[in-house]
Amino acid sequence: MNADDLILISVDDHLVEPPTMFDGHIPARYRDAAPKVISKADGSDVWSFNGSEIPNIGLNAVAGRPREEYGVEPTAFDEMRPGCYDIHERIKDMNAGGVLASMCFPSFPAFSGRLFAVADDKALALAVLRAYNDWHVDEWCAAYPGRFIPMGLVPIWDPQLCAEEVARLAAKGVHSITFTENPAALGYPSFHSAHWDPLWKACCDHDVVVSIHLGSSGKLAVTAADAPVDVMITLQPMNICQAAADLLWSRVIKEFPQIRIALSEGGTGWIPYFLDRLDRTYEMHHLWTGQNFNGRLPSEVFRDHFLTCFIADPVGLQLRHMIGIDNIAWECDYPHSDSSWPKAPEGGDHDVEIRPFDKGRFAKKVGIDIGTLQERSTA
Amino acid sequence: MNADDLILISVDDHLVEPPTMFDGHIPARYRDAAPKVISKADGSDVWSFNGSEIPNIGLNAVAGRPREEYGVEPTAFDEMRPGCYDIHERIKDMNAGGVLASMCFPSFPAFSGRLFAVADDKALALAVLRAYNDWHVDEWCAAYPGRFIPMGLVPIWDPQLCAEEVARLAAKGVHSITFTENPAALGYPSFHSAHWDPLWKACCDHDVVVSIHLGSSGKLAVTAADAPVDVMITLQPMNICQAAADLLWSRVIKEFPQIRIALSEGGTGWIPYFLDRLDRTYEMHHLWTGQNFNGRLPSEVFRDHFLTCFIADPVGLQLRHMIGIDNIAWECDYPHSDSSWPKAPEGGDHDVEIRPFDKGRFAKKVGIDIGTLQERSTA
Repeated sequence: MNADDLILISVDDHLVEPPTMFDGHIPARYRDAAPKVISKADGSDVWSFNGSEIPNIGLNAVAGRPREEYGVEPTAFDEMRPGCYDIHERIKDMNAGGVLASMCFPSFPAFSGRLFAVADDKALALAVLRAYNDWHVDEWCAAYPGRFIPMGLVPIWDPQLCAEEVARLAAKGVHSITFTENPAALGYPSFHSAHWDPLWKACCDHDVVVSIHLGSSGKLAVTAADAPVDVMITLQPMNICQAAADLLWSRVIKEFPQIRIALSEGGTGWIPYFLDRLDRTYEMHHLWTGQNFNGRLPSEVFRDHFLTCFIADPVGLQLRHMIGIDNIAWECDYPHSDSSWPKAPEGGDHDVEIRPFDKGRFAKKVGIDIGTLQERSTA
Repeated sequence: MNADDLILISVDDHLVEPPTMFDGHIPARYRDAAPKVISKADGSDVWSFNGSEIPNIGLNAVAGRPREEYGVEPTAFDEMRPGCYDIHERIKDMNAGGVLASMCFPSFPAFSGRLFAVADDKALALAVLRAYNDWHVDEWCAAYPGRFIPMGLVPIWDPQLCAEEVARLAAKGVHSITFTENPAALGYPSFHSAHWDPLWKACCDHDVVVSIHLGSSGKLAVTAADAPVDVMITLQPMNICQAAADLLWSRVIKEFPQIRIALSEGGTGWIPYFLDRLDRTYEMHHLWTGQNFNGRLPSEVFRDHFLTCFIADPVGLQLRHMIGIDNIAWECDYPHSDSSWPKAPEGGDHDVEIRPFDKGRFAKKVGIDIGTLQERSTA
């Protein structure tokens, strides 16, 4: 590919938070209590907060390493590719990989930011979370305008505070938050409770997409304690079907018709079957379960509300018209182990391309500039 | 369709055990302790064994009822269609639905027969299990020769006894057993332990297929206690991907190359994505996880070992060549709520047909006469 031809928009990448991230963002009175990086005797670097230590898992920062060296042990900053945590190096890696723009999920706070919720001092927790978001928007994303889709964390321990943070973020130009795929699995009320209504209302009012990443329930699909890690890796993407079904049949979709949900790292090739299964479940069971979408089929409702994405998914690309071409985005997953960086542009299995800042149906609905698929012949 | 044109072979139906089933099969000394049907004050009939009571769930015996009447409450024999538990009525229903042959899973012992394992007296447990199998083969199936694919239970509490029961069953002409999709979830050693080797060896030695039904781990995909039942119903089939991945990457496949596994009620439309995900997981990770199929891809290994099936699955039928046409069977799921009985022959979405007693690639491998798909044009 031509080095200037940056056509890829990635809706799921990951950043490793640099040790200095809270400097200049956390109020002085919380500086001592803010999360800090500690170097351990085993050579690894961990984040420390409120008595907990969170390692950087090696498998989550392997971009550019030989595959023989992949592993799940904790790692250190000096063992990672600098593009994991250094914004200037990240941009170089994005350029090398044909990536025009990127949305970056958090690492140490967990995808849902649930780490901050463990602090007994909830004023501290909120100050840390806002400092995190300010760093993400004002330093990480702002260093290269137009190259990042900013994403915010919300204070999951309080739905009203979530709503306020969504409004604050939207005023800063942020139209995507990261949220858990299953709040019930984290001990909070489920998607079927009215508990979260202030959050959903704020997302609708401010055109903010709810991005739900696989694993954000704190649970991975582990079949048995002694199962090979290949089992868990295989099951990760499709496992997000649980969140998709949970939300599709929930009151969230019915009460908040403007809500938009991105299924992050979930893949796409299983979606046609899933849509058919939704419709069959409706057809066979709605007369006794009472489900009602005002005469519409669940598959139609899905296409209005859900954005899917893929790293490399020849089955999903072949079936793109059964999914809905405007409902499919691409992701790089840099610097995680499933990423195709830096070879995605040469992937060769794409007979479609991802158009930069496409103004397709879903992109308009979600209110942000996400590239979705376009047939190459019409490009 | 022509009433004489019975072309459908169902690899997943269900029987509701009749109250008299143990008469004539259980040794006299265990007669008092054998499972018994009790009529409850609420009008429901339950099976009683070893201090436990197991209801017949209404949703599992709804064949022929209006959908408005479906529900999960316990039911009674006189509220069920007699074809649920009466072999002569079952045959009439099979005839009406175009079903030539049927494999019937158990109801009250659970799919894996785990109910019998709770008995403190393991000699009693084994006597009951063998009486169950004898009734199933010698009464249920034998009443209409050629119309049933017999299926046995195994004593899950003891792998050596499992092996002996497999041999005993094979001598009676039984070449399919029902087993749990995840023994670890039931508190037994996982598929990754050598614990089960006697069972796998017996299955290989006697050409017995291991049929694994969704829900046979005792766990359904329940996202939250207050989730609508539609969520669980939607997720049921695809959720068997956990068992498929667990077994595919396990030592079972590597150590027992003749082992054959049927994924019962798992659907088919998600399989092409799953196969691609298996191969990508291998490609991206085998160098550090150490997986090794002697140079073959996991998708090739899957096609050698797994039979899939569907009730009604237009996506899976469209993608049948990406799955492997010899790896797809059909199921009726009578008398459960997802069944298409009695209208399957008129389904109209089939541009393939299920050939009776097909001698295709998988059928030969599994050693029993299972009908798999054939292109209609070549029929």
